Amino acid sequence: MNVIKYISTVRQPRVKLEFLGVKWYSKYVPGEPAAPSVKEVYGPINKRMKKELSEIQSTLSVDRFIDLDRSIGNYFVDADGNIFLDTYMQIASMPLGYNHPALLNVYKDQSKLVAPPEMGYVNTQMCGSCSNEQAFKHVFIWYAKKRNGGRDFTKQELESSMHNKPPGCPHLSILSFWGAFHGRTTSSLSVTRSKPIHRLGFPLFGDWPAAKFPLYKYPLEENVRENKQIDSKSLEEVEDLIQSNEKKGWPVAGIILEPIQSEGGDNHASSEFMKNLQKICKKNSIALIMDEVQTGCGATGKMWCHEWFELPSPPEMMTYSKKMLAGGYYHTQEMLPDKGYRVFNTWMGDPARLFVLEVVLQTIKEQKLLENVQKVGNMTLKGLKDIVKEFPNVLHSPRGRGTLIAVSCKDDPTRTKILTSMKKKGIIGGSCGPVSIRLRPSLIFEEKHANIFLDKFRQAVGEL
Amino acid sequence: MNVIKYISTVRQPRVKLEFLGVKWYSKYVPGEPAAPSVKEVYGPINKRMKKELSEIQSTLSVDRFIDLDRSIGNYFVDADGNIFLDTYMQIASMPLGYNHPALLNVYKDQSKLVAPPEMGYVNTQMCGSCSNEQAFKHVFIWYAKKRNGGRDFTKQELESSMHNKPPGCPHLSILSFWGAFHGRTTSSLSVTRSKPIHRLGFPLFGDWPAAKFPLYKYPLEENVRENKQIDSKSLEEVEDLIQSNEKKGWPVAGIILEPIQSEGGDNHASSEFMKNLQKICKKNSIALIMDEVQTGCGATGKMWCHEWFELPSPPEMMTYSKKMLAGGYYHTQEMLPDKGYRVFNTWMGDPARLFVLEVVLQTIKEQKLLENVQKVGNMTLKGLKDIVKEFPNVLHSPRGRGTLIAVSCKDDPTRTKILTSMKKKGIIGGSCGPVSIRLRPSLIFEEKHANIFLDKFRQAVGEL
Repeated sequence: MNVIKYISTVRQPRVKLEFLGVKWYSKYVPGEPAAPSVKEVYGPINKRMKKELSEIQSTLSVDRFIDLDRSIGNYFVDADGNIFLDTYMQIASMPLGYNHPALLNVYKDQSKLVAPPEMGYVNTQMCGSCSNEQAFKHVFIWYAKKRNGGRDFTKQELESSMHNKPPGCPHLSILSFWGAFHGRTTSSLSVTRSKPIHRLGFPLFGDWPAAKFPLYKYPLEENVRENKQIDSKSLEEVEDLIQSNEKKGWPVAGIILEPIQSEGGDNHASSEFMKNLQKICKKNSIALIMDEVQTGCGATGKMWCHEWFELPSPPEMMTYSKKMLAGGYYHTQEMLPDKGYRVFNTWMGDPARLFVLEVVLQTIKEQKLLENVQKVGNMTLKGLKDIVKEFPNVLHSPRGRGTLIAVSCKDDPTRTKILTSMKKKGIIGGSCGPVSIRLRPSLIFEEKHANIFLDKFRQAVGEL
Repeated sequence: MNVIKYISTVRQPRVKLEFLGVKWYSKYVPGEPAAPSVKEVYGPINKRMKKELSEIQSTLSVDRFIDLDRSIGNYFVDADGNIFLDTYMQIASMPLGYNHPALLNVYKDQSKLVAPPEMGYVNTQMCGSCSNEQAFKHVFIWYAKKRNGGRDFTKQELESSMHNKPPGCPHLSILSFWGAFHGRTTSSLSVTRSKPIHRLGFPLFGDWPAAKFPLYKYPLEENVRENKQIDSKSLEEVEDLIQSNEKKGWPVAGIILEPIQSEGGDNHASSEFMKNLQKICKKNSIALIMDEVQTGCGATGKMWCHEWFELPSPPEMMTYSKKMLAGGYYHTQEMLPDKGYRVFNTWMGDPARLFVLEVVLQTIKEQKLLENVQKVGNMTLKGLKDIVKEFPNVLHSPRGRGTLIAVSCKDDPTRTKILTSMKKKGIIGGSCGPVSIRLRPSLIFEEKHANIFLDKFRQAVGEL
C-alpha cells in the first residue's frame, strides 16, 4: 500500500484525531481500537478509489487506501473501514505510528497539483534531481515497450540485470544540451552540462550525447535570419547524434531540455525550435522531457513555461520542483508503465510539502500572482532594456519571460563587479552562463521592488 | 547562501511574523521594509555562525545566514541585520517570498538531528536514495584526495569531465552485497542487488562489484563454527573483488552495506564480521558506508543499529532516512570535502520534515521509546521462537534486534499463504528475501500489540 500516493493525490478525509469511542487504549496514542477487524480484505470503496486514482497515475504499485481520519497508533484503517494491526508501517518509515498526538499539529491540510495541459498523470517525488532520474526510468520503460511490443522479460534479461549489464540493464541514453542543468544524482548529472565542478571526480555515463543549445543574437528582431540558422544547426546536430548514438550501441530514448536554459545562461529557444524538436522526437519514437524545475510554477507568467510554445501535442514528460516545494513529473497516458514497482520508492513524494503547496497554489490564484508576474516582468524587462541602451559597452542581450529575466555583461569580471556592487547596495541577484546576471524573484515581486532593483542596478553599472 | 542549511542545523530565532514597525508596505506581505539597507556585507555574526556551522558540516557552499524572524516578503535579512532585496530567492525556489502570512502556520519549530557516536558532521538530503547517491560522491572526492594528495584538477580532467569521461569522471566503483537494497537512483540502484524488477530496463554501472553477504544458519548457538566460515568466505570475496576491480580499471572507493540486510531477507551479520570488514576497508583506504535507512532511528532499540557492533572506530559514512522522515548522512571529519558546490543542491534537506523530526525525537526521549522497543522486541522474538518450535516444518530461523524481527518460511508459497491469512485476520506484515516474513512496526508497538500479532500469526501458521 502506498499512503503517500493517496494523501498526495486523492481528496479524502483530513488528518485528525478521532477517538472511535475508546479512550487511551494505547499507552502512547489515545484512541486505538482494541483489536483488528476485517470485513472484506479489498472492499468496494478501495476498489472504486483505485479506479479513480488510475486516471491520474499508475496504480500497479498501490494495494489499498488509508483512512487518515481513523488510522491511529499501531492500527491502519482502510477506506472501507477494515482495521489492521500494522507491523510493517509503510516499509518501516512511520516512527510514531499513525496520528500520534505529538504530530497532529504539523499536518493541516491536503493538496492537489496543477497539471499542465493534456498531461493528466502525475508521479510525485522529492526534489528536482530525483524527479528527472525517475522520469528517465519511466522513459526507458516506454522506449523498450515501443521496440519490443511489451513482451515479457527473457531469462537472460532477468539474470544480466542483477549484474547491471545488458540486455537486462540496456545501454540506453538520454540526449541533453550543452549548458543544461538537470540535477546532481548520477543520471540527472550525466545530462547536466554546465560546469565541471558539479561532476569532477564522479563516475557518469560517458556515452550519453549532448547537442548545442541555440544561443541567439539579440535584439531578436534584428537577427531573425541568423537565429533561424542557429536553430537549424542545433536541430541537425540532434538528428546526427540520434543516428550516431544508435550506431555506437547507446540509442537515445529521451531528449531532456529546459524551456529556458537557466544555469546555462538564461538561453531562450524559439517556439519554432521547440516544435521542430518535438517533430524529431516523434519521428524517432523518442520521448521529449521538459524540465520545468526552475521555469515552472508561475515564474514566466504562465503556470508552466512550455505553455508559451503552443506545441501541437504535449511533451511526453514534464518534471517540476523548486517553487513547487517538492518534486515530481507529469506525463501523458501513453507513458503509464506496464508493471508495478518499477518506478517506486517509500515516499513517492512528500505530503508535508504538499500541505504547503496547497497554500501556495491557493494564494497564487487568490492574489492573481500570474498576472502580477506578467505585468512586473514586462515592466522590469523594459527598464532593463533602457539601461542596456545607456551602457551598450557593458551590457547586452536583455531577455526574459515573466520575471525570469537576464542580461549579459561584456565579460565575467564585469559581471562579478556588478553583482558585488549590487550586494553592497542591498540587492541579491544571481549569475548564469559565462557572463549573464539573472533574476529569479518570487511571485510577489511588485513594480516598486522592480524599481528599486532597476535603480540600484543602474547605479552599479554606472559606477564601473 | 543556503537558508536550508541554516534552518536545519543552527538553532536561532523562530519563524514568525515581525512587523519591523512598517505595516502593509508590500501589497502581498505585511511588514516589508521600504528599501534595502546594508551595513557590512559580511558582518560579525555571520562570520561567527559560519565558524560554528563548520564544526558539523562543510561551509564551503555557504555564503550567509538568514534571520528567519525578520526576513519578509521580497526582503532577505541576514543574521547581522543587513537587509537585501532578494531577486534570486534561493535559486528560484521561494514562490511567495519569505514569511508570507499564508505559510506561517505551516512552519512551527526547528530541529536538530541525533548524531551517531564520533560522526560529528551531517549532510541533510531528501530521501534514502539521494542520501546514498550524495554519500558516494563524498566518498569519491575523499578517495581521489587520498590518492592524489589533494592537488588541483588538471586541464584534461576539467575538459573530459564535461563529456562524462575519465580522467575527469573517473571509473570508480562502490562495492555492495548481494541482497542489498540501497535505493533507486542510478548509483544507489547500481549497488542495490535484491530483485530484477527494480532495475530491469535501466542503464546502470556494469563494473561495480557485489560480494556474498554472510547468510547464517540458525539457531546461531548451534552453528558457531559454520557461521564463522561463512563470515570468512564473504570477507575473502570482498578482498578478492577489491583486487580484481582495481585490475580491471574500476577501483573500489567505498563499501556500502546495511547493518541488517532488510529487503534481502533480514540477514544479520556478526559484530566480528563488521569489525573485520572495517579492517579490510582501512587496509585498502576504502570508505565504509553504513546504510541505516531502514535500521536507524530506534528500530533496533538503539538509535543506530551499527552501535551494537562496537566498532573500534566509526564508519566513514552513515546514511539515514525513512523513520528520520527526511534523508541525509553523518560522516567523520576526515570526509569533509575540500571545495564547495561539489555535493550540493537547492534544498540540502527539508526543513518542513525537520520540524516534524524534532517532535519525533522529543517523543522518543520523553516516552522512553528505545526502552520500549528493546523490551517488546525481546518479548516478540521469544514468542516467535516458541511458535517456530511448535511448527518446525513450516518455520525456521527466527531472528531480530529490537522490533526489527523476521522469521523464514519453508518456501515462498507458504509465506504468501501466511501473509494472506494474516491480512484476513487484520495484521499487516511484510516480506523480505526469498522466504522470510519481516516485522517493521513503529516505535510505539507495545507488548499487547505483540501479543495480538503472535496470536494471529500462530493461528495463520496453524491453519495451513
